[in-house]
Amino acid sequence: MNYRMMGKFIAQILLVEAVFMLPAGLISLGYGEINAMWSFFASIGITAAVSAVCFFFCKGAPNAFYAKEGLVCVGISWIVLSLFGCLPFYLSREIPKFVDAFFEIVSGFTTTGSSVVANVEGLSHGILYWRSFSNWLGGMGVLVFLLAFTGASGKGFTLHLLRAESPGPDVGKLAPKMRSTAGILYLIYIVMTVLNFLFLIFGGMPVFEAVCSALSTAGTGGFGIKNDSFASFSPYTQWVTTIFMMLFAINFSCFYLLLLRQFKAVFKDEELRLYLGIILVSTVLITLNIRSLYGTIGEAIRHAAFQVGALVSSTGFASTDFDLWPSFSKAILMCIMAVGACAGSTGGGLKVARLLLLLKGLRRNIRQTLNPRKVQVIRNNQNVVNEKVLDNTNAYLAAYVIILFISFVLISVDGFSVETNFSAALSCLNNMGPGFAAVGPTCNFGGYSAFSKIVLSLDMLLGRLEIFPILVLASRSTWKR
Amino acid sequence: MNYRMMGKFIAQILLVEAVFMLPAGLISLGYGEINAMWSFFASIGITAAVSAVCFFFCKGAPNAFYAKEGLVCVGISWIVLSLFGCLPFYLSREIPKFVDAFFEIVSGFTTTGSSVVANVEGLSHGILYWRSFSNWLGGMGVLVFLLAFTGASGKGFTLHLLRAESPGPDVGKLAPKMRSTAGILYLIYIVMTVLNFLFLIFGGMPVFEAVCSALSTAGTGGFGIKNDSFASFSPYTQWVTTIFMMLFAINFSCFYLLLLRQFKAVFKDEELRLYLGIILVSTVLITLNIRSLYGTIGEAIRHAAFQVGALVSSTGFASTDFDLWPSFSKAILMCIMAVGACAGSTGGGLKVARLLLLLKGLRRNIRQTLNPRKVQVIRNNQNVVNEKVLDNTNAYLAAYVIILFISFVLISVDGFSVETNFSAALSCLNNMGPGFAAVGPTCNFGGYSAFSKIVLSLDMLLGRLEIFPILVLASRSTWKR
Repeated sequence: MNYRMMGKFIAQILLVEAVFMLPAGLISLGYGEINAMWSFFASIGITAAVSAVCFFFCKGAPNAFYAKEGLVCVGISWIVLSLFGCLPFYLSREIPKFVDAFFEIVSGFTTTGSSVVANVEGLSHGILYWRSFSNWLGGMGVLVFLLAFTGASGKGFTLHLLRAESPGPDVGKLAPKMRSTAGILYLIYIVMTVLNFLFLIFGGMPVFEAVCSALSTAGTGGFGIKNDSFASFSPYTQWVTTIFMMLFAINFSCFYLLLLRQFKAVFKDEELRLYLGIILVSTVLITLNIRSLYGTIGEAIRHAAFQVGALVSSTGFASTDFDLWPSFSKAILMCIMAVGACAGSTGGGLKVARLLLLLKGLRRNIRQTLNPRKVQVIRNNQNVVNEKVLDNTNAYLAAYVIILFISFVLISVDGFSVETNFSAALSCLNNMGPGFAAVGPTCNFGGYSAFSKIVLSLDMLLGRLEIFPILVLASRSTWKR
Repeated sequence: MNYRMMGKFIAQILLVEAVFMLPAGLISLGYGEINAMWSFFASIGITAAVSAVCFFFCKGAPNAFYAKEGLVCVGISWIVLSLFGCLPFYLSREIPKFVDAFFEIVSGFTTTGSSVVANVEGLSHGILYWRSFSNWLGGMGVLVFLLAFTGASGKGFTLHLLRAESPGPDVGKLAPKMRSTAGILYLIYIVMTVLNFLFLIFGGMPVFEAVCSALSTAGTGGFGIKNDSFASFSPYTQWVTTIFMMLFAINFSCFYLLLLRQFKAVFKDEELRLYLGIILVSTVLITLNIRSLYGTIGEAIRHAAFQVGALVSSTGFASTDFDLWPSFSKAILMCIMAVGACAGSTGGGLKVARLLLLLKGLRRNIRQTLNPRKVQVIRNNQNVVNEKVLDNTNAYLAAYVIILFISFVLISVDGFSVETNFSAALSCLNNMGPGFAAVGPTCNFGGYSAFSKIVLSLDMLLGRLEIFPILVLASRSTWKR
């Protein structure tokens, strides 16, 4: 392990973070929120100072990254990023406890959107913006940002980094150079975020609210600016958000293919088809199930589609208190919550691509049991899937289930109900946001103990980075020699 | 698919079942329960008649079994066995609805022990015996019985059959011939059941109750004879049952090795160590958690150990209403419920051996991510594990999780709480017995609709036969040509 190289890398990350805190500080200044403003500038100062120290001690380090360093760097970067990112919350005393502030920013960067704040409307504008911006930055990935827009590069660095930070079983290259790929991804991301913002403005939403909502939606994060999430917004705004949540959970390479006018490839994409199928079927079933709770069929469809979009994309917004829905709808929501978004999107969860691989692997297994001598390969969009990818997908599922159960047990110490604890762990591991019962859409995670909040913070990081970059930090073989 | 061969095989299974119904009929006769007695003799007549018809039409069929026929036969046999095995319940009107009777016997044969009967003490002796005996027969497997004690054999038959019916990722041969292996397993099973019976008698339990309890415990089934399961029995009886539940959930090859005086091999068995570790840790944690609910520390240990034994072995007896325990204890119980017993035992669940393989696979995956060029094998008790076994284990986990979530959604239609539905699906898939909340240890599954009961019956069969023998029945490639 080359520690100086890691130090240099973290210095860059912190510098980017300090720069990104500036707009939040200026917003605080604009709204005359002196307390929040000072906390931002103090945070910028601290972050920049630490960055400078790291640069000073590690300036001569090489840029050559290997698989191991890449993984470890990604894991550590996200933790460091969160430790410094929570400073504004803590220093402004708007979230007085450090562990709560840490939970909140981890929830932001990992695009989970679970909050410890009961009264969101009581937060200052700068803090609200910083929460939503953390969703946006975490959605596409801060390291990918670094890769796309700064000079950071090096042998192997880009690939390992993109692999570790981009969700899904495998990373497709959009352009011959990984750095161009990262740039294309961010460009699409920015354009779509702006579109979302414009649609919201068009519906009469105030500019500040539209900025925050668009940032949270784009990152599929789900940090809201209202205590009732999206319940009090107009049906138009809810529909716009529904559609954008669903769009941001699609693999971004599909959008790139659309730009290249390769409509056929997009239309035939198996993951996209399964994803749209899941959305359609769940929305229809839930609409039928909740029909009697709402005045018109249109209202039932709207709430069903909003909730399906919010949970399949792992955004976690709520247009109504879905914890009060019948068990059948709640069970469907839990399932789409576990499956999550498409690979290569800003959404969380197991990913539709992994579900597809698991189903295909299962089918092959049944066929091979029946015909042991026949060699069978698994194809995805006509291409043979590498056995290594299958192997990783299987290991991922095992890790996912084991982590889910372990954290479920650990947070049960606090004595909440089984439904609360299980859905809290599921929600955090899938970067969803709200769960059910005591962590339902109208509640928050403030009731959990500091210990549970740390467990759930780790779950969020594990979920966002797809387990391995965090898990290797706990492996002995990472640190030996 | 050779249908005549399958017909001949099913004829043998039904004949064995008809013979096994005789003692139950005689017990009814002995207790003067005329209604139950007639239902048994009518069931024997029907079962024997159908068996005879099958024999007549399929007598000349060959005995050569291939992997495909073996799997399909096991799947169909268990369904047929259940369809005829539920006749006594239905004909005696002690369980008036056919779907309830079917659920009850599937629960019996799969050693689940979930019941639709609210007042168990109101059942006749013959019916109670038949319930407990179904636990016993299903525990080691009726097809293995056929293999061990009747003339059934044929090329490939024995191996495929033992593989499909014996729990765990891989089947070890105890003797060079599979048939002798089956015989040894049953012999150990019978001796241990008798020992359990004697220990219960020694504690003053009446003979009939001791017979039924020993049969249910040996099969790790959990059909009780009292409405409060084991709560009203003496501490001695509870301890005896605790120990035997734990013993029956150990891989039977360990007992065989003990007979051969290979103590070192048993002591070093990794699965056994992990299993005992799980028991120890869970018992200690639960004892600490429930300490304040009971008068003495001894009582807390007794209930904790009993419940851990009951759930890790998937027996599902209750010495107290553990649904009232704190969430932490319930979460631990849910986890050991999901992990279940050792491979090659009569218990259900994912199996400790599979957990071990999954953990080792995960560790290898992390190491390979760190050192991509190093080839690493997975060892179990010093032997290299075949990659095929690992592949099957991974596919098993994927199938397990997918089935769990699908059945959770399906039974949610009935509108019970999320906790009830999730624990019901988990309990049935793991052949456990009780779940939590509305299907907790003091409740029963009678409240579910006929549709949900069929879903849960399928879950029990999927769990007992470890998914694939039932899943292949739904695969198109099984039936084509």
